[in-house]
Amino acid sequence: MIDADNVYLSENKVSNRDKLLTLSTNLKVAIVGATGAVGKTLLELFDERNFDYGQIWLIASSRSAGQIIHHRGVNHQVYDLETFDFRGVDLVFSSAGTATSKNWGRRIAAQGPVVIDNTNAFRMEPDVGLIVPQVNSNQVLHKLKSRIIANPNCTTIPMVRALQPVHQEYSLNKLVISTYQAASGGGIAGLEQFTSGSQLVLDNPEAIPEAGRFQAPLPFNLIPRIDALLDSGFTLEEQKIAQESRKIMGLPKLNVTATAVRVPVMNCHSQAIYFECDSRLDYSRLTTILDDTGGIILYRGIGEAEGYPTPRGVSGSDHVHVGRVRIDPDNDRAGWMWVVSDNLRVGAALNAIQIAEDLIQSESSVLCASAY
Amino acid sequence: MIDADNVYLSENKVSNRDKLLTLSTNLKVAIVGATGAVGKTLLELFDERNFDYGQIWLIASSRSAGQIIHHRGVNHQVYDLETFDFRGVDLVFSSAGTATSKNWGRRIAAQGPVVIDNTNAFRMEPDVGLIVPQVNSNQVLHKLKSRIIANPNCTTIPMVRALQPVHQEYSLNKLVISTYQAASGGGIAGLEQFTSGSQLVLDNPEAIPEAGRFQAPLPFNLIPRIDALLDSGFTLEEQKIAQESRKIMGLPKLNVTATAVRVPVMNCHSQAIYFECDSRLDYSRLTTILDDTGGIILYRGIGEAEGYPTPRGVSGSDHVHVGRVRIDPDNDRAGWMWVVSDNLRVGAALNAIQIAEDLIQSESSVLCASAY
Repeated sequence: MIDADNVYLSENKVSNRDKLLTLSTNLKVAIVGATGAVGKTLLELFDERNFDYGQIWLIASSRSAGQIIHHRGVNHQVYDLETFDFRGVDLVFSSAGTATSKNWGRRIAAQGPVVIDNTNAFRMEPDVGLIVPQVNSNQVLHKLKSRIIANPNCTTIPMVRALQPVHQEYSLNKLVISTYQAASGGGIAGLEQFTSGSQLVLDNPEAIPEAGRFQAPLPFNLIPRIDALLDSGFTLEEQKIAQESRKIMGLPKLNVTATAVRVPVMNCHSQAIYFECDSRLDYSRLTTILDDTGGIILYRGIGEAEGYPTPRGVSGSDHVHVGRVRIDPDNDRAGWMWVVSDNLRVGAALNAIQIAEDLIQSESSVLCASAY
Repeated sequence: MIDADNVYLSENKVSNRDKLLTLSTNLKVAIVGATGAVGKTLLELFDERNFDYGQIWLIASSRSAGQIIHHRGVNHQVYDLETFDFRGVDLVFSSAGTATSKNWGRRIAAQGPVVIDNTNAFRMEPDVGLIVPQVNSNQVLHKLKSRIIANPNCTTIPMVRALQPVHQEYSLNKLVISTYQAASGGGIAGLEQFTSGSQLVLDNPEAIPEAGRFQAPLPFNLIPRIDALLDSGFTLEEQKIAQESRKIMGLPKLNVTATAVRVPVMNCHSQAIYFECDSRLDYSRLTTILDDTGGIILYRGIGEAEGYPTPRGVSGSDHVHVGRVRIDPDNDRAGWMWVVSDNLRVGAALNAIQIAEDLIQSESSVLCASAY
């Protein structure tokens, strides 16, 4: 069913290249949270992907305002979110935390820009699209009346990218997921606390580093709690994984349950995914469809390099890395996979840019009032 | 059904204290693998538990033979396994690796001692008991004609200890487990490689430490492969978890499936356990029965100390630490728990000593031909 007010992107109707270039070279872009881990990764990805813009503003909280960030040969002053005027901006990438987005997101969108929001502020709002371009790009413009598109959680994105081809072939009915999430999910400050705390413990094994951005000291430890603890006994992170994957895959009744754990790794989130399907799995077919899915690197060897992905091995990569694919010997409708991806890239900045690229390429682009 | 040749320990028939003391002060004990991580932990636990013996021999491979180990005021020379005569020894704790046990275990037992073997050599042998005293102590003497008792895998032991009370109340039918296993599982050498490799990476983030005892470099990394990779696509570690838990709990048809991951933590194995039962779970009842189980510490608070166990928090403890207990909102017959325990103690040396204590306390002790 297509609502009357929806405009769908068709993958078969890519706009012509000239129009795309015109649009993007005139595009007026802002990054809210530009001094954070995801903001910095966005700027790196702008260069790597030749993401063109006509003008850019880097914005942060008043604490970071006034800093200078060098990008594409220009020294950009960081503006204060409190006083910035978003009128005339086409596209805002926002990743300054859920509280900031809740406070500012709709106000910014009301001034004109489309906001691609990387926080938990709007993901489950009925009028906001929750988009992973490889999975539900046809919904990019769905409900865009809010002018906000939500970027899913850093764990949800690679998970649905790896599971969508499995679902299309075998019809998923249940997911049991355990995550292994890196320190960089706690931002630049979290990563620095983790690194200095690790040195502290190596110097003195009895030392207790500060918890800092995390719920407990992370160095050489595991923290089985990410984000708030809910009345259900699940954490908000675990609830996000369940709710978001259902919304993105369009499977409101999919049984998804997770345990989310912070691990003493610098970058890249990993997850052990157990999946049950309606139909019987065939190993050869299962690995073939994963191997044929764009953006996925499949590991099926035995040795260290080709046997399975590891977080240190894939940091900086823009792919979803899938290994340890196997079928449960007790239940041929169930299997496992081990998925690793760069949480700052695949799980955040890259997905946001890919949403933006879809918007720019859409024939009926809702962006760029200013560019026309 | 009790086989004619079985002698069962009855928990209601504890031997009288005098006999116990006489037995243990005359007990002739040997530790094979005395210079390893589990061997050293055994000696610590002998002291902490006042485990009495009349005489002790410390034994290792020829590489470590000749070393001196100080214990209870005595300097013990380490003997060479190749040339040691086990006649007259009552009880052998063996943890010198699966290959060594396969080569020596039955030969040692044939010389008279009961062997409590901590490796994978004999666990699934039909004539060998696989014992977790808190779960199946009534089988300690079952099939002891082999004179070998196997100590289960370091992950299996805390898992079945935490799940047995759940099974007794709700009848388990399915387990989906993801493990987070510490470096000390790779022995003293593995732990040292991990620690020095971690310093290498802190000094130079691009450094690639040696894999050493593990399948890949562990510092600040995750290795989703422990032990050999089988044709099924599962690792031997994952197969052990499934097979051993079925044998210990006496549930040959229980659906158990696991992903086992080595994590950059020094000591204590953790696991996220998803369990499905035949009957509906009640949170209050579930936590009460766990809380009432001896040897389990249950966490049900919210804060850092009381909210959940962490590996750094419980290292050195002789308890099974259980937290994050919750019921799946989509399926009230299913739930999760997060289990952490000291893999060298609870997962190895402590379980072996508890088996020995059961043997010593048995009225019809099969130990100590020499003590009578």
